[in-house]
Amino acid sequence: MRAVVPFDATAPKTRLAPVLDSTERRAFAERMLRDVVAAVEAAGGVPQVVATESVDVDRPAATVRVDDRPLSAVVNDAIARTVEGGDPLAVVVADLALATPAALSRLFEAEGDVVVAPGRGAGTNALVVRTSDFHVDYHGTSFLDHLDIARAAGVEPTVVDSFRLATDIDEPTDLVEVLVHGTGRAHEWLDARFELVVDDDEGRVGLGRR
Amino acid sequence: MRAVVPFDATAPKTRLAPVLDSTERRAFAERMLRDVVAAVEAAGGVPQVVATESVDVDRPAATVRVDDRPLSAVVNDAIARTVEGGDPLAVVVADLALATPAALSRLFEAEGDVVVAPGRGAGTNALVVRTSDFHVDYHGTSFLDHLDIARAAGVEPTVVDSFRLATDIDEPTDLVEVLVHGTGRAHEWLDARFELVVDDDEGRVGLGRR
Repeated sequence: MRAVVPFDATAPKTRLAPVLDSTERRAFAERMLRDVVAAVEAAGGVPQVVATESVDVDRPAATVRVDDRPLSAVVNDAIARTVEGGDPLAVVVADLALATPAALSRLFEAEGDVVVAPGRGAGTNALVVRTSDFHVDYHGTSFLDHLDIARAAGVEPTVVDSFRLATDIDEPTDLVEVLVHGTGRAHEWLDARFELVVDDDEGRVGLGRR
Repeated sequence: MRAVVPFDATAPKTRLAPVLDSTERRAFAERMLRDVVAAVEAAGGVPQVVATESVDVDRPAATVRVDDRPLSAVVNDAIARTVEGGDPLAVVVADLALATPAALSRLFEAEGDVVVAPGRGAGTNALVVRTSDFHVDYHGTSFLDHLDIARAAGVEPTVVDSFRLATDIDEPTDLVEVLVHGTGRAHEWLDARFELVVDDDEGRVGLGRR
């Protein structure tokens, strides 16, 4: 299955600015991208990175195309080209640092013409589209909007219940999840610089520079 | 399968104080508890609520026992009594407002002597224990600690990858998930008082009073 992996190569992960400077954010974002591309491949997908600027994903099987249009336009074009031609299309965002081949296999193998893996905050972190009657709209409550768009097209959407696919890495608190559950390049990069810190009063877990 | 559902009836959900007053927090917490108890029953479990004070769960099949000891002591006692007697034991925290019978069935039916559903922030939201060589320690990075405790007992732990089981409702931002994904009493209560609000600049989703 073709899997579009959109990547903001221009100013990635700006909401991590409280803990990572711009050079670090770019380095970390590229490692998450490479992890996602590798996991897509291992789950039997064919990754097609669509980046706002050139980026090296270090995987011979992955293609990279530069396209600086908004995400929804890029994905709707891909739906038109791929799904109208009779093939399914997956879309997997590039900051799923916890994505594993097993989690992505559940996504790819789920039945239904529209399969959605929600992200926290009403977002859409991954999709499989098997009907060109569906289109995407990534602004705001995109998870709810994608359910509505599917139903308006006469399709009952399938929802994949995965913590690993729901955890996109946007905010500093999300980095705790990478340290706890990550296994790839992004985890290795982060683990060399940060460690888990337990607040003894509350028992809450944060992170601190090593 | 017996399923202990621990409930803080004394001062529930204090971290929701920025958006809910103490009467609301208690009302909301009781609805989450009732949702969890109903979902456990629907998944074939036998819920046993252990609360710090008396609470009415409004389910004939659910027992309620008052025990104000720390959570780890309560659960380790339950492991000793139930698992040493040859029966498996589940533990499901009471603030899993997104828990569904399907998600809990994946937990109950997962193979392994120690099955763990992680929560955000390195927590442990649900467990199935089938060996009395295992014990719990809920402080701090309990998810990682529970993996270590299982391995020290010679058991390779099974991890259940579920967004619904990973989402315990602690902070105001978690309430967005209840509005988006909830289906029970807690969702109904919250939806009568709050609505989703999309930040037009960032596209981020929060909530506001109706």
